Amino acid sequence: MKFKPLADRILGKIEEQEQKTESGIIIPDTAKEKPQKAKVEAVGGDVEHVKVGDLVLFAKYSGTELKLNDQDYIILKEDDVLGIFE
Amino acid sequence: MKFKPLADRILGKIEEQEQKTESGIIIPDTAKEKPQKAKVEAVGGDVEHVKVGDLVLFAKYSGTELKLNDQDYIILKEDDVLGIFE
Amino acid sequence: MKFKPLADRILGKIEEQEQKTESGIIIPDTAKEKPQKAKVEAVGGDVEHVKVGDLVLFAKYSGTELKLNDQDYIILKEDDVLGIFE
Amino acid sequence: MKFKPLADRILGKIEEQEQKTESGIIIPDTAKEKPQKAKVEAVGGDVEHVKVGDLVLFAKYSGTELKLNDQDYIILKEDDVLGIFE
Amino acid sequence: MKFKPLADRILGKIEEQEQKTESGIIIPDTAKEKPQKAKVEAVGGDVEHVKVGDLVLFAKYSGTELKLNDQDYIILKEDDVLGIFE
Amino acid sequence: MKFKPLADRILGKIEEQEQKTESGIIIPDTAKEKPQKAKVEAVGGDVEHVKVGDLVLFAKYSGTELKLNDQDYIILKEDDVLGIFE
Amino acid sequence: MKFKPLADRILGKIEEQEQKTESGIIIPDTAKEKPQKAKVEAVGGDVEHVKVGDLVLFAKYSGTELKLNDQDYIILKEDDVLGIFE
Repeated sequence: MKFKPLADRILGKIEEQEQKTESGIIIPDTAKEKPQKAKVEAVGGDVEHVKVGDLVLFAKYSGTELKLNDQDYIILKEDDVLGIFE
Repeated sequence: MKFKPLADRILGKIEEQEQKTESGIIIPDTAKEKPQKAKVEAVGGDVEHVKVGDLVLFAKYSGTELKLNDQDYIILKEDDVLGIFE
Repeated sequence: MKFKPLADRILGKIEEQEQKTESGIIIPDTAKEKPQKAKVEAVGGDVEHVKVGDLVLFAKYSGTELKLNDQDYIILKEDDVLGIFE
Repeated sequence: MKFKPLADRILGKIEEQEQKTESGIIIPDTAKEKPQKAKVEAVGGDVEHVKVGDLVLFAKYSGTELKLNDQDYIILKEDDVLGIFE
Repeated sequence: MKFKPLADRILGKIEEQEQKTESGIIIPDTAKEKPQKAKVEAVGGDVEHVKVGDLVLFAKYSGTELKLNDQDYIILKEDDVLGIFE
Repeated sequence: MKFKPLADRILGKIEEQEQKTESGIIIPDTAKEKPQKAKVEAVGGDVEHVKVGDLVLFAKYSGTELKLNDQDYIILKEDDVLGIFE
Repeated sequence: MKFKPLADRILGKIEEQEQKTESGIIIPDTAKEKPQKAKVEAVGGDVEHVKVGDLVLFAKYSGTELKLNDQDYIILKEDDVLGIFE
């Protein structure tokens, strides 16, 4: 069973928050809004700049969380994506 | 007696929230906004991407609940539908 | 003396809230926003999808209540109509 | 000295709130927002559906009240007019 | 030194609030929002319906107050003008 | 090093608030929102009606304050400018 | 691993807040919203007026903070950029 996000929404698998990532990116504890990373697994028909496989950064309290096969997923609007790691 | 949702609204039969569904989707208790599933039974004339029979995911506090023949229904705006299970 | 709703407004006679209607529709007590039914008696010039005689469902705290000849009426914007019973 | 409402505004003479009007319209005490009636005395240049002489219904906390020759007046935006008694 | 209001703004000299004006207009103490009168002294380039010399009515808490040569002035957006005394 | 305001923003040097200015303009203590004056030093590319050298009036709590060489500056959106002294 | 801001967003390296900068710009402690400076390192596809290498000023509570290789970064919408130091 596949999940198809609607319109400008994105389904992403949430990446574990490391203290220090390999790429050296750390989310400061003092940040008012801790961003998180997710791997994009599906995109809605109106999504323009994000594609399946992208590793995206999003603000922590945006979107709606889901659990699928014991993995944490997030459904985000494209506008809530801060940027893409390339 | 049939119910016809107006404009961009959708009538869905709410699916029981299992702890772990067959498809493996679990809604975490810690999610700030627990999403729910509904089977679409009728759509308004302005609904574009959802059709009768679709199994949709929606944020818990969106829409208006109804009871019909002891079943729980929800009236949602299409924009409140997070995505469709295919 | 007739009442003509303005623009996109609808005048409806509020139907008594039964515990269980003939059509089997029950409004759950636990619903955050109990919907109500009204029989449409007049519509404004910009109303598009609702006509006189329709039995409509609306969210309880939408619209403005009126009493006319000891009957409860509601003035609703068309957008506050959740759907029509056909 | 005449008062000319600007743009989409209406000047109305507020009608006394009777317990039961001749037309049988009663405003219930339990209504969250008691509507009131006013006789239209002047309209702004952008008013489309209301004319001088109309008896209009408006929500109580909309508009701005005025006193003129010991009479209560209201300045309303056309959009705050719920409907017209014909 | 002249003051030129910008865009859709109006500079008005606030008229003293009499208990009963010659034109018989009284602002009721019970009004939730006491309107005031001002004589228009300058208008911005986007003002359409108000001109220098007009006596306008405006809601008390709209606009920004100024003092010029011991007189009270108000800077209003045209949309905050309720109407004009003619 | 020059500062270039972006889009519809204006950089102004804040003028000291005198009790009574030469032009006779006094800001009343009782005003809910004390306006202030600034000399425009730079404008963004979308500013239409304000130019370098203008003495502008702005509402006190609009904009963002800066200090440059011990002088107080303000960065304002053009829409927050109430008017220009000519 | 590079970070690509989406749409109208900008990635900037936050500059340390000096008490008095070489350019003489001081952020007053009494300012309601202390602005900060950042060096632009990447811009999204819809950014129009800011380019990589620009030193920009932004309001402190706008944007989302990130840490990358022990440096503080900010992700801003272009509209949150107050101006550019040239």
